Amino acid sequence: MATIKVHGVPMSTATMRVLAALYEKDLQFELIPVDMRAGAHKQEPYLSLNPFGQIPALEDGDLSLFESRAITQYIAEEYSEKGEKLLCPGCKKVKATTNVWIQVEGQQFDPNASKLAFERVFKGMFGMTTDPAAVQELEGKLQKVLDIYEARLSKSEFLACDCFTLADLHHLPAIHYLMGTDSKVLFDSRPKVSEWVKKITARPAWAKVIDLQKQ
Amino acid sequence: MATIKVHGVPMSTATMRVLAALYEKDLQFELIPVDMRAGAHKQEPYLSLNPFGQIPALEDGDLSLFESRAITQYIAEEYSEKGEKLLCPGCKKVKATTNVWIQVEGQQFDPNASKLAFERVFKGMFGMTTDPAAVQELEGKLQKVLDIYEARLSKSEFLACDCFTLADLHHLPAIHYLMGTDSKVLFDSRPKVSEWVKKITARPAWAKVIDLQKQ
Ligand SMILES: N[C@@H](CCC(=O)N[C@@H](CS)C(=O)NCC(=O)O)C(=O)O
Ligand SMILES: N[C@@H](CCC(=O)N[C@@H](CS)C(=O)NCC(=O)O)C(=O)O
Repeated sequence: MATIKVHGVPMSTATMRVLAALYEKDLQFELIPVDMRAGAHKQEPYLSLNPFGQIPALEDGDLSLFESRAITQYIAEEYSEKGEKLLCPGCKKVKATTNVWIQVEGQQFDPNASKLAFERVFKGMFGMTTDPAAVQELEGKLQKVLDIYEARLSKSEFLACDCFTLADLHHLPAIHYLMGTDSKVLFDSRPKVSEWVKKITARPAWAKVIDLQKQ
Repeated sequence: MATIKVHGVPMSTATMRVLAALYEKDLQFELIPVDMRAGAHKQEPYLSLNPFGQIPALEDGDLSLFESRAITQYIAEEYSEKGEKLLCPGCKKVKATTNVWIQVEGQQFDPNASKLAFERVFKGMFGMTTDPAAVQELEGKLQKVLDIYEARLSKSEFLACDCFTLADLHHLPAIHYLMGTDSKVLFDSRPKVSEWVKKITARPAWAKVIDLQKQ
């Protein structure tokens, strides 16, 4: 079997999402670095992998995919027999509910959490200045989302059901970065959310993603 | 079989997305209006259907779902034998590629197109003033997305493959509103995109969604 190839860098949130899924599934893969400083993601040959010029992209045999959340779903379904189940193998009701919370991450959580991580973490890395007004606005929005998560997580152990699924996994990269900032308190101050953050960040597969960043 | 219930209003883009899928699948349903002016979506009992206080929500027997794109996927899979196939019934490669373009709509197209429709259409309806600088910025971003669509649609008839799928359908509401504004030219000036817009807006199921708005 051809090795799975991931094009990306281990600091990138969208790449981390895909790496987490691959480690959960215990799959062999090759991480092919994309030289973003040199603008490699905005040129061929990379644009043939992802015409939007963003990382990550995945190759599995002759299949080539982009958009991190489409990649994780492919991995979870194609390799359903390997490693951890990332889609709760329950009834169709659970499947539909998992999809709801996958959408919630993409539509409600991430637009705020990613921009907040950009303000608080990445702007500093790139020599830019954090905008306090933006931080305040984004934290306000994120708090409303987390209030809904708090209520949800008092009904089930994870977002979709009592198993860890892609709906939880997709949150890991932004949470990882925000937990290293003052926004940590938004998570810590909500008991169920805080418990959930501890559980999902403690997964061995996630530790491997963080280890990759240190290499 | 219990009737499917959609909670929403026919002018709402996210509701229209779900209505389009139901009509494509030739399913019976009841549209239950949500009195947004009275703030019904921010109160019980609606919040039990969608804790985010947004429309639409769907009930099918004892299953209750929200997030329009999770609902359309449920409809397409649960009623795969009825009406139009909204997921190209091809190989796993096509399935994964359909997911890529579903993500592209949600992550790349919609954030710009929805905000542009808000500026150009909904602000007027609500007695607010369009912000020309925002329009210019959003149009700039949308053009870049549409350039990529133009290239894609010269390789396949629809976004995911040569069949109409959910990946196309999800674009209909925002495109419908933008085609009634000066942003129409962004679509019309790109031959493949323009052809695609004509094809997807001409679908009988879509005409039924627009008819519902006139009632
Ligand atoms: N929705 C995309 C987002 C990908 C994305 O934003 N990638 C970032 C790195 S985390 C990137 O490539 N940024 C460079 C750019 O957008 O030009 C996904 O989930 O894959
Ligand atoms: N991501 C959600 C978006 C839903 C949404 O934004 N609905 C709008 C109407 S189109 C709404 O309820 N707005 C009122 C609000 O957000 O308070 C979905 O796709 O269902």
